[in-house]
Amino acid sequence: MNPESQITSQIIVSQIGCGYWGPNLLRNFATQSGCHVKWVADSSPQRLAYVLKNYPATQTTQNWQDIIADPAVDAVIIATPASSHYELAKAALNAGKHVLVEKPLAMNLKEADELIAIAAATNNILMAGHTFLYNPAVQYMKELITRQELGQIYYIYGQRLNLGQVRSDVNAWWNLAPHDISILLYLFSGELPTSIAAHGTAYLQPEIEDVVFATMTWANQVTAHIQVSWLDPGKIRKMTLVGSRKMIVYDDISDSKIMVLDKGVEWIPKAGEVMDFDRLDNYNPSYRSGDIWLPKIDNKEPLGIEASHFLECIRKGEVPISDGKHARDVVAVLEAGQIALKSGQKVSL
Amino acid sequence: MNPESQITSQIIVSQIGCGYWGPNLLRNFATQSGCHVKWVADSSPQRLAYVLKNYPATQTTQNWQDIIADPAVDAVIIATPASSHYELAKAALNAGKHVLVEKPLAMNLKEADELIAIAAATNNILMAGHTFLYNPAVQYMKELITRQELGQIYYIYGQRLNLGQVRSDVNAWWNLAPHDISILLYLFSGELPTSIAAHGTAYLQPEIEDVVFATMTWANQVTAHIQVSWLDPGKIRKMTLVGSRKMIVYDDISDSKIMVLDKGVEWIPKAGEVMDFDRLDNYNPSYRSGDIWLPKIDNKEPLGIEASHFLECIRKGEVPISDGKHARDVVAVLEAGQIALKSGQKVSL
Amino acid sequence: MNPESQITSQIIVSQIGCGYWGPNLLRNFATQSGCHVKWVADSSPQRLAYVLKNYPATQTTQNWQDIIADPAVDAVIIATPASSHYELAKAALNAGKHVLVEKPLAMNLKEADELIAIAAATNNILMAGHTFLYNPAVQYMKELITRQELGQIYYIYGQRLNLGQVRSDVNAWWNLAPHDISILLYLFSGELPTSIAAHGTAYLQPEIEDVVFATMTWANQVTAHIQVSWLDPGKIRKMTLVGSRKMIVYDDISDSKIMVLDKGVEWIPKAGEVMDFDRLDNYNPSYRSGDIWLPKIDNKEPLGIEASHFLECIRKGEVPISDGKHARDVVAVLEAGQIALKSGQKVSL
Amino acid sequence: MNPESQITSQIIVSQIGCGYWGPNLLRNFATQSGCHVKWVADSSPQRLAYVLKNYPATQTTQNWQDIIADPAVDAVIIATPASSHYELAKAALNAGKHVLVEKPLAMNLKEADELIAIAAATNNILMAGHTFLYNPAVQYMKELITRQELGQIYYIYGQRLNLGQVRSDVNAWWNLAPHDISILLYLFSGELPTSIAAHGTAYLQPEIEDVVFATMTWANQVTAHIQVSWLDPGKIRKMTLVGSRKMIVYDDISDSKIMVLDKGVEWIPKAGEVMDFDRLDNYNPSYRSGDIWLPKIDNKEPLGIEASHFLECIRKGEVPISDGKHARDVVAVLEAGQIALKSGQKVSL
Repeated sequence: MNPESQITSQIIVSQIGCGYWGPNLLRNFATQSGCHVKWVADSSPQRLAYVLKNYPATQTTQNWQDIIADPAVDAVIIATPASSHYELAKAALNAGKHVLVEKPLAMNLKEADELIAIAAATNNILMAGHTFLYNPAVQYMKELITRQELGQIYYIYGQRLNLGQVRSDVNAWWNLAPHDISILLYLFSGELPTSIAAHGTAYLQPEIEDVVFATMTWANQVTAHIQVSWLDPGKIRKMTLVGSRKMIVYDDISDSKIMVLDKGVEWIPKAGEVMDFDRLDNYNPSYRSGDIWLPKIDNKEPLGIEASHFLECIRKGEVPISDGKHARDVVAVLEAGQIALKSGQKVSL
Repeated sequence: MNPESQITSQIIVSQIGCGYWGPNLLRNFATQSGCHVKWVADSSPQRLAYVLKNYPATQTTQNWQDIIADPAVDAVIIATPASSHYELAKAALNAGKHVLVEKPLAMNLKEADELIAIAAATNNILMAGHTFLYNPAVQYMKELITRQELGQIYYIYGQRLNLGQVRSDVNAWWNLAPHDISILLYLFSGELPTSIAAHGTAYLQPEIEDVVFATMTWANQVTAHIQVSWLDPGKIRKMTLVGSRKMIVYDDISDSKIMVLDKGVEWIPKAGEVMDFDRLDNYNPSYRSGDIWLPKIDNKEPLGIEASHFLECIRKGEVPISDGKHARDVVAVLEAGQIALKSGQKVSL
Repeated sequence: MNPESQITSQIIVSQIGCGYWGPNLLRNFATQSGCHVKWVADSSPQRLAYVLKNYPATQTTQNWQDIIADPAVDAVIIATPASSHYELAKAALNAGKHVLVEKPLAMNLKEADELIAIAAATNNILMAGHTFLYNPAVQYMKELITRQELGQIYYIYGQRLNLGQVRSDVNAWWNLAPHDISILLYLFSGELPTSIAAHGTAYLQPEIEDVVFATMTWANQVTAHIQVSWLDPGKIRKMTLVGSRKMIVYDDISDSKIMVLDKGVEWIPKAGEVMDFDRLDNYNPSYRSGDIWLPKIDNKEPLGIEASHFLECIRKGEVPISDGKHARDVVAVLEAGQIALKSGQKVSL
Repeated sequence: MNPESQITSQIIVSQIGCGYWGPNLLRNFATQSGCHVKWVADSSPQRLAYVLKNYPATQTTQNWQDIIADPAVDAVIIATPASSHYELAKAALNAGKHVLVEKPLAMNLKEADELIAIAAATNNILMAGHTFLYNPAVQYMKELITRQELGQIYYIYGQRLNLGQVRSDVNAWWNLAPHDISILLYLFSGELPTSIAAHGTAYLQPEIEDVVFATMTWANQVTAHIQVSWLDPGKIRKMTLVGSRKMIVYDDISDSKIMVLDKGVEWIPKAGEVMDFDRLDNYNPSYRSGDIWLPKIDNKEPLGIEASHFLECIRKGEVPISDGKHARDVVAVLEAGQIALKSGQKVSL
């Protein structure tokens, strides 16, 4: 009688990679009900010792193929360096396992599209670790937009800034912007921007931009502007949504993450003028500056919600919020932004 | 005996235009010592009644030529709509009077250059009302840069945002960006950017951009980014300067306008590595996050300092900080930015 | 035909005293409709010149009896030093005029009571300048309390702190606490505290306390605590109301003056326990920390609302919010607090 | 060969109690160099299982006497409920062990004094867990005071407020004020206040005050005021020091914990007056409001510094900062405050 037989109703997951971000994933899956973490694979014995000490019920291995080869494993979590995502995810999917892969899903669109195709062909869940989609503050914004509380959305601008964690392998765009792009695609129901322009400069290392400013446009003149930098005096994680009826300021660092402002501009006819929207000079702008509302946002850890969502999608066969398609679109925008950044030209998608 | 004979050592100024901004100029000149405001001209009898009531020692007229024709007048202040600046300033300079003209100096570079030439030919002071150059917080930043306290300047970004005062004659770029451009040119000792890109969108009125994002580059990779909007939930007047040794956050609305941060990034050799700056991978970044300093900034009204500076330049025959050249350069950047905004292409200056 | 005949429907007011605070009163009455400021009296020719220049339709005099003696004057505004309030108000009331007197109404309870009696006997309005009762933020708090939105009110604490305006004639208690006491009496519908304790210390001048901490208790254990100081690093004008269902933070300096917090503590029975409120150990406290709401508060100048209210009370014969009784109660609490401060003992009212 | 022989240079510590706060102590001692945690005792098997899982090198027992009886144990950490502190500390000291006991040292002065006497007689270190004395922000304030940078200290006021963690065994005074009293005694070099007054009210449970306001006075008119509450809308941990030359705001929750303000009041002679300090009316107050300084405060965990300090005192035979005397004085002030609170009368110490 193998130990798994006692937990047949449980989903057996295993994790490849337990370095910088991996322990957070492991901790969250280990505490999910209806789930057992059977294996953790990592090339470092130190990391495996850490796992054994903290999760005595989990086996370890330096060989990730042990996990792929184990028929008891239902799902594989991939938290390795980005360049290995494609190979590992492909192997796991082809072995008939569901896959949660850390962002970015792959290094280019071709690989991303191939993974999506394999997941479809093998009928497995493919989900990417775009954690912000499981952040209750982001979900709250999405809900307000869905309920059309903001009126027409005009534009969104965001700042993701701090001093430190300078990378040598990728620039600030690939390092920091995936979060903002993922959030924007989510808020706009997956619609891709039609164009992107990006400007950035490399100060600390040649060709590795430390600060990038990007402007994206969608249909109906909806615009988004992102500033990312790891060379800034303050730690800022902020996004502002400007709508015709209401506006939102989302500050991920503040105690009250979401501020909804009953603010807007309306055009009222000048005295003696009849309503005629073709003649805007007959109107005066009227500014509404009303109440401000700081809703209580659930303080659950987004990664726990993400882990629970992955398991739920496996159980019910549902499409994850951050599915392969979403992850692929993030890569598409990142790639276009990179081309715009290097060329100085606006790029169409 | 005419009344002026008693104040021969005084500078006799007169003002054309006393509408929205004019009363502030008038109030500041009226309280300067060594100066007498003889005339105020305005087409509106209501505005002139306001002047008479508050400044009984000042004469009023609906005809601005009365001021040009009065040989007792030493200097003319022009606070009329922008489209009349060129004609009025030209007439005053040609009549041998010093001129302080509200920004923008003129509607295009050609007119601006002509005014500069006339001022030079007639040996009169030509100054533009770029008030922020007389803001003690801006002067403090300039001083820190001059003393090289920031190390190498990497980049500057600014936000000038609020809800309201939507204009129908100009877009947010021409309305709000002159302040930021004037400050940037001042901080960079008058050096023009080599290129500018700008992205903006018109939501409330056709072709009149409500929000604009612009990126300017100078030699040595110095970059500046400006966001201006009159369609924003918050009133923000902020500029951040990132240097290699120190950083500054300038918040014009905060009590402590200037925050100097002892922050920076340095590269230190990895253990066992010799110093070799061509091999950056031998180094680790080291982040310095030290004390923060909020210097006491003089809270004098910038417009009073501006008025005093104009009179001082007349007395001593000195070149004003916001002289014709500065005002012309602001127009040059505004024009280039407008072309970039409409074309979607980066524009060289 | 005298000029008043043209404005018979207007209330003719006149003001005695136009020094530090007087110009604010004058400006607000001068701009009220249905009201004409006929006289201003002040002992200083400079102050009278100021009045003539800014309010050409108003006469001036150095002799306040001119105002009392003028039968055309309906109402007198008294903005002189506190020690003269009693004499001037008494004279004006006895001459059949309505009176608005700056706070404090009088220097002691005996004089205050006498003024109330004369106003009643002569059938004149007697109102005191407790401006905070006309502050829209304070009125908003009063409304929430009246609608019982806070549940049971537990306690209130306030801080009125700044550096500067040190007085030599009165201590920080008499100088700053009248505002807080007036607000508290208003919120509690005029109910006087049953006791007061106060602790303070004089650092800068002998016997003149620079900082005072006072605790007042009402029936039902309602408590209020006030800290006043003119020797503090920050300018703070804050009051916190703690209720069983909701709490309010009122910050008079902040942009959003009022913050309503859906916070509270409830007792829920422990598992397996029946409801029995005599056995609190059968219950666990449950903390509610919900949404926060920043209502849009009207930004009208309180002094304008006060002036308008005074005129309205005259027209309709109504009792002002800050009537003699309110002003007298403020003096009663101030007097008791002063005794507590000097004796170190709790004082009953 | 027993395992200790390999670590003879190490200090062998053991901990009694590992409930709410105990795990933090354990984690910090476990990571100190030159120290080995041999035993943890707790009555709860669950707590001991937690210890075994996380600290496999540590033995567990349900019987605290095992620790007292083990001759290898050099020092005992006591993190049990307050009522058992006296008995356990006494047993450990009498067994010749150094003791670190959580605050409060004992339930009354008599027991505290007895423990101090035993520690002296047995020549053991007796230290109490007044963690704030090891908080770098508090140590920074102490240093500024020692260097006399504040000038004469006038007064200090603090707020320790939050919603939640309502206790049924002690009131907010005994629960929250020990921190503030410990800090105050430290800043004032151990000098006890001469008197204390306290006012508080019990809203949620009979006789258990939820909010307390206390005023303490020292010689030279130095005053401190403390507000503690667990029934407040905000989480506030703030202390303000007002000195004649500089002032400090210490906000334990803010990113920049310490703000030093170059602010003060000086008396300058009026024009034409000679210097004569007996005639203060010949002087005008002059307010200095200069630069503000946010020093970089070390973000080391105070509890780690505390653990290191305890071991250092054992090694060098030095007196701990939070020694028995300090802990006893905190109890003395708490007791006097409790009497003042219940009697409504000022109490002398």
